Amino acid sequence: MTAELSTADQAAITSGSDFWQTTAVESAGLPAITVTDGPHGVRMQASGGDLLAGVPATCFPPAVAGAATWDPELLYRMGEALGDECRAMDVAVLLGPGVNLKRSPLGGRNFEYFSEDPMLTGVLATAWVRGLQSRGVGASLKHFAVNSQETDRMRISADVDERTLREMYLRAFQRVVTRAQPWTVMCAYNKINGVYASEHHWLLTEVLRGEWGFEGLVVSDWGAVADRVAAVRAGLDLTMPGPDAAGDRALVDAVEAGVLDAAMLATAARRVREMIGKAGQREPGGYDADAHHELAREIAGRAIVLLKNDGGLLPLRGEGQSIAVLGEFARTPRYQGGGSSQITPTRLDDALSRIQAATSAAVTFAAGYDDPDAAAEVARAADVALVFVGTAHETEGADRESLDLPAEHLTLIERVSAANPRTVVVLSNGAVLLTSPWQDRVPAIVEGWLLGQAGGSALADVLFGQVNPSGRLAETIPVRLADHPSYLDFPGEHGHVRYGEGLHVGYRGFDARDTPVAYPFGFGLSYTTFSYGTPGGSGLEIRVPVTNTGDRDGREVVQVYASLPGSRVRRAPRELRAFANVAIPAGETVEVILRIERDDLAYWDTRLNRWLVEDGAYVFEIGASSRDIRATVTRQVAGDDARVPLTEDSSIGEWFADPRGAQVLGEAFAAAMASAGDSTMAAMAADPGMMLMLASIPIKRMAAFPGSPVTAGTLEKLIQAANE
Amino acid sequence: MTAELSTADQAAITSGSDFWQTTAVESAGLPAITVTDGPHGVRMQASGGDLLAGVPATCFPPAVAGAATWDPELLYRMGEALGDECRAMDVAVLLGPGVNLKRSPLGGRNFEYFSEDPMLTGVLATAWVRGLQSRGVGASLKHFAVNSQETDRMRISADVDERTLREMYLRAFQRVVTRAQPWTVMCAYNKINGVYASEHHWLLTEVLRGEWGFEGLVVSDWGAVADRVAAVRAGLDLTMPGPDAAGDRALVDAVEAGVLDAAMLATAARRVREMIGKAGQREPGGYDADAHHELAREIAGRAIVLLKNDGGLLPLRGEGQSIAVLGEFARTPRYQGGGSSQITPTRLDDALSRIQAATSAAVTFAAGYDDPDAAAEVARAADVALVFVGTAHETEGADRESLDLPAEHLTLIERVSAANPRTVVVLSNGAVLLTSPWQDRVPAIVEGWLLGQAGGSALADVLFGQVNPSGRLAETIPVRLADHPSYLDFPGEHGHVRYGEGLHVGYRGFDARDTPVAYPFGFGLSYTTFSYGTPGGSGLEIRVPVTNTGDRDGREVVQVYASLPGSRVRRAPRELRAFANVAIPAGETVEVILRIERDDLAYWDTRLNRWLVEDGAYVFEIGASSRDIRATVTRQVAGDDARVPLTEDSSIGEWFADPRGAQVLGEAFAAAMASAGDSTMAAMAADPGMMLMLASIPIKRMAAFPGSPVTAGTLEKLIQAANE
Repeated sequence: MTAELSTADQAAITSGSDFWQTTAVESAGLPAITVTDGPHGVRMQASGGDLLAGVPATCFPPAVAGAATWDPELLYRMGEALGDECRAMDVAVLLGPGVNLKRSPLGGRNFEYFSEDPMLTGVLATAWVRGLQSRGVGASLKHFAVNSQETDRMRISADVDERTLREMYLRAFQRVVTRAQPWTVMCAYNKINGVYASEHHWLLTEVLRGEWGFEGLVVSDWGAVADRVAAVRAGLDLTMPGPDAAGDRALVDAVEAGVLDAAMLATAARRVREMIGKAGQREPGGYDADAHHELAREIAGRAIVLLKNDGGLLPLRGEGQSIAVLGEFARTPRYQGGGSSQITPTRLDDALSRIQAATSAAVTFAAGYDDPDAAAEVARAADVALVFVGTAHETEGADRESLDLPAEHLTLIERVSAANPRTVVVLSNGAVLLTSPWQDRVPAIVEGWLLGQAGGSALADVLFGQVNPSGRLAETIPVRLADHPSYLDFPGEHGHVRYGEGLHVGYRGFDARDTPVAYPFGFGLSYTTFSYGTPGGSGLEIRVPVTNTGDRDGREVVQVYASLPGSRVRRAPRELRAFANVAIPAGETVEVILRIERDDLAYWDTRLNRWLVEDGAYVFEIGASSRDIRATVTRQVAGDDARVPLTEDSSIGEWFADPRGAQVLGEAFAAAMASAGDSTMAAMAADPGMMLMLASIPIKRMAAFPGSPVTAGTLEKLIQAANE
Repeated sequence: MTAELSTADQAAITSGSDFWQTTAVESAGLPAITVTDGPHGVRMQASGGDLLAGVPATCFPPAVAGAATWDPELLYRMGEALGDECRAMDVAVLLGPGVNLKRSPLGGRNFEYFSEDPMLTGVLATAWVRGLQSRGVGASLKHFAVNSQETDRMRISADVDERTLREMYLRAFQRVVTRAQPWTVMCAYNKINGVYASEHHWLLTEVLRGEWGFEGLVVSDWGAVADRVAAVRAGLDLTMPGPDAAGDRALVDAVEAGVLDAAMLATAARRVREMIGKAGQREPGGYDADAHHELAREIAGRAIVLLKNDGGLLPLRGEGQSIAVLGEFARTPRYQGGGSSQITPTRLDDALSRIQAATSAAVTFAAGYDDPDAAAEVARAADVALVFVGTAHETEGADRESLDLPAEHLTLIERVSAANPRTVVVLSNGAVLLTSPWQDRVPAIVEGWLLGQAGGSALADVLFGQVNPSGRLAETIPVRLADHPSYLDFPGEHGHVRYGEGLHVGYRGFDARDTPVAYPFGFGLSYTTFSYGTPGGSGLEIRVPVTNTGDRDGREVVQVYASLPGSRVRRAPRELRAFANVAIPAGETVEVILRIERDDLAYWDTRLNRWLVEDGAYVFEIGASSRDIRATVTRQVAGDDARVPLTEDSSIGEWFADPRGAQVLGEAFAAAMASAGDSTMAAMAADPGMMLMLASIPIKRMAAFPGSPVTAGTLEKLIQAANE
């Protein structure tokens, strides 16, 4: 970090030397480091191998499953394990986590993202980054920002208003940056309000570094840079992949021509060197593949969401209960998505053999999709039928076109459930599927997401009750796609997508319109039951006793949703503001402590251009899901100074709504009425109907009207007096 | 129109001399002319009278009712009559019609606007303007544009994308301007995408004059000008009200300082003089108040929409059927809204006395709202109960807060319908109300809008069958406010309102999400019934035989909705593209001819920046409402040239989707593969999964990748070849 680099060398190190390595400068003793794809495994390209084929590594559950655990502690351990695998493969930076909001359930990359809620996303990703970086390996927080779709992803402009941007699409990034300082942030491909993320100075510099205090490096998504000079000027440090000799030269030329401030390039180069320096401190290491497989199994087991279990059909008994397993996915698991995150696993568990291993009773199998009738015959002969269905394929690069199961999977459910009423549907999918078309046909549904390489074992663990399910939905399952808040505006057209639902992403939109859903955000059943006692605590700490009222140990995820009746801004009816994931032994009661952070109550005020906590009586709903509220408490919160200064553009209504403004303007009206009968305006204000018309007029505009009690001459003084 | 004006005089005549008059320049022989509010009557301020009190004039049905007639011929006659009243009062320009779309049913000024559909609005307003201007009186098409709410109306920015602007919010203006050349267009108070309408050069000059060929004058809404110089520069000609000496001086100063092009001021002044010149050709005249009252009654009768009539409870018999009339509105009619359009009527019909006059049987009355129990007693004793309920007040200056009837009106319906099952609800309201909370309690519902001064007679005409109802809904009645497409984004906050539903205004949004409604757009019952035969015709002319299958003469409004399956842009499931209002005697069949104009099939293409008719098989649904489709025809329409030139920003997918592009790029890929094994990219394209990833990459960005088959050097030639 000592030797000065020439401008040419500075430019050179701000682009890669190949797909996965930075550029070394031997004369300065600067080595190349390796960065590689994640996020749920280390996808290290084999030497001389195909671009998208990696050497074997543990395929942990993708983020869709990690999120369903609602457990930051698990994500921290996953981060640690990934760090160990990176060290073993000499990887300095793992390209994850992906914290984009799931704006639409059609988003092709949703399996790599956490949730439709920014707080849940932020809390889990923060833990993951801390775990990873505790091993001396850097994270790359991506894709910054508003990369919510695959359609036209390299050009599309996400057109979104600032409050929505701040409160929803940037909020998880903000949380992770301020609490975990990831080594790098990866800029997205898309544009935000018409400007490429890679050239977005407000985003990469003003907000990320200026407001949030980010200390690391901004790397481009692979191929996201359209203009190296514009990107460096905006705050981008490292362009990947490389080599990009033309771009390096353009930077040098721009500096020499005085078009680009030399200090900007120097800063970008310094940040690359700092990252390389941090990477140099990493100790080499190895990892225990068996232990990592077990961790992957533990996380997967905790990610499974039990959606339905009528009559306690689950868990299966393990003896004396013959089982028909139907559907090829039981034998050939769907366990991860396609694209840059695709891992070559160290091993792969399938559900069928794990089910066979878990029971002494007969287990029969039919592949099913091609021949549901044969599968139905197999099902008819068994005590219980397990139908494995799901999405055929989900991948980076393409959004989904519907939320329906493939037709042959739907037929399989229909035939099997008709043949055996004791049918359990087991889903494998990277993002939500519609259950409404068939959910009434079956007594039990297990949402199995994409669970990584140990998913087959984890499913058997849950099906047989070795693991008592505690996963919760991190995304709403709608009744119909057309009900989804994003429905009318996804994926946009002709280069633009309007984020028309604004703040009302996911459950916020369903709740705002009170739209029925199939399964709500935060929902998940257990093999035991929990009851909630009367909440206590004070201020922003809520304590609630939760009792496991069943006969099995289990975990409950207690959720707190906030609202502020009478808020001066539009707010969703409820917003997740705290949660706790607690193990509660059978029959016992645990006092669950939920701490709401005051900052999390803030909204972004577009007039004051800052976060603002409103003064007021906040309602906190404590629930087992967003639509299963068990208790409500109201807590008074002292707000920030929320006064908006009065200006010449403030309306008469705003003047009268402000205590000081009302006094000052009231005096002016009174004086005008006292001095002149011709002061029509002041007289009009006495009439409620006319006052209604006057209220919306900016005071400056009124001052220009004939007979106004305020004139251009007196306005300045009034403003001064009102803001004193 | 001859004498040259000084710069000072030019400036002076571009602002009014008082609230309602232009500025005279005696030296140039230029008189002042009077403009005054409309649109459904001539609101001529009495000399020395209150600003909002006019001399008596016919209060015709406000636009909410006029629109429900779906009859341009009636609107033309109303325009003529208004023209005659203007001539009688020496009014040169009547400030109407208001053609803003009803974006939200909460819009406070909806009673002054026509519809949630731009075509229906445009067709009716065109007829009105032609009728008015046929009398030598000018119209003022308002409020240009996107003035869809009252909340913060003088500052709010309507944030709306261009396609939505063009296809929805500007389309009615475009239709009226191009087909009726109103003398004036009135700019709105609000901002559009951050720019005041009064300063919006694109809107007032590029689109209005440049594209649409508007030849008249742009006048400001009263008080809408924040900056005279900016306004003139944008294309505004006349600022109202006046005097505005400071503004006039600012214009002169700006010209002298070279800040404002003198030609711009001269143009504005010329347009004012041209308008005054046109006004000078008007012959003075008088009008027959009785005849105008009868016309008002005819239009009102045609505007009433029969929503429900179970068991044929209506029409009433006129003898031998005692009638209880409940609700003060029957005696004291609600017949117009508040604000600038409020007329002092020449006379006023109330429903109660007209009902008494129409029957030989007993008519009893109770005012009802304060004492529903007493009203219920009155109802119990009668053969039929008529309950008059509605909105208490609707006015310019304030949006509504709910779509509910006042609580005491709801109670009145409840008590009366419990007391007498033969209850008819008669509604008086300026915009839709929810009917779902009570509609199942009553067998008949009459939607009576605000019907103007003859509304009481018109209601009696319909109730007793003197007029067979033929009004149709010009706006959807939703089941719940929360179902409305605008719900999440109305009225905005902090100076901005996002038009988040985009094109999906009104029924387009309900249809796009397949949301149930209480009564759909285009709906209305008759005392007779109609059956539709098999449609014929060819091209864009549809002929459909419609038979009056009942025993009363009646009118049917045949509607044609278009869609284009497989369109390359998102479209609403159905859009009104033609309609015909036909009288059909009992038992007879009429061949109804519906002509769709090819231009009305165009969408606004944001890539080509022009209207575009797509080639394809258009589906035309012929219906009695938007959700009562009786027949469907498909017609092939030859489209415009829709090719988008290929550029360096076109994606690989777009290149391959274009026949010529595919050929040129395919050759480049083949050559690269033939010449070098190291051309990774070209080889990748052979893999469908990889092609998916490549498809979204702009070709210029690909050219920068290592191993690309296209390079910066060859790209220019490829583009030329592809576009040859």
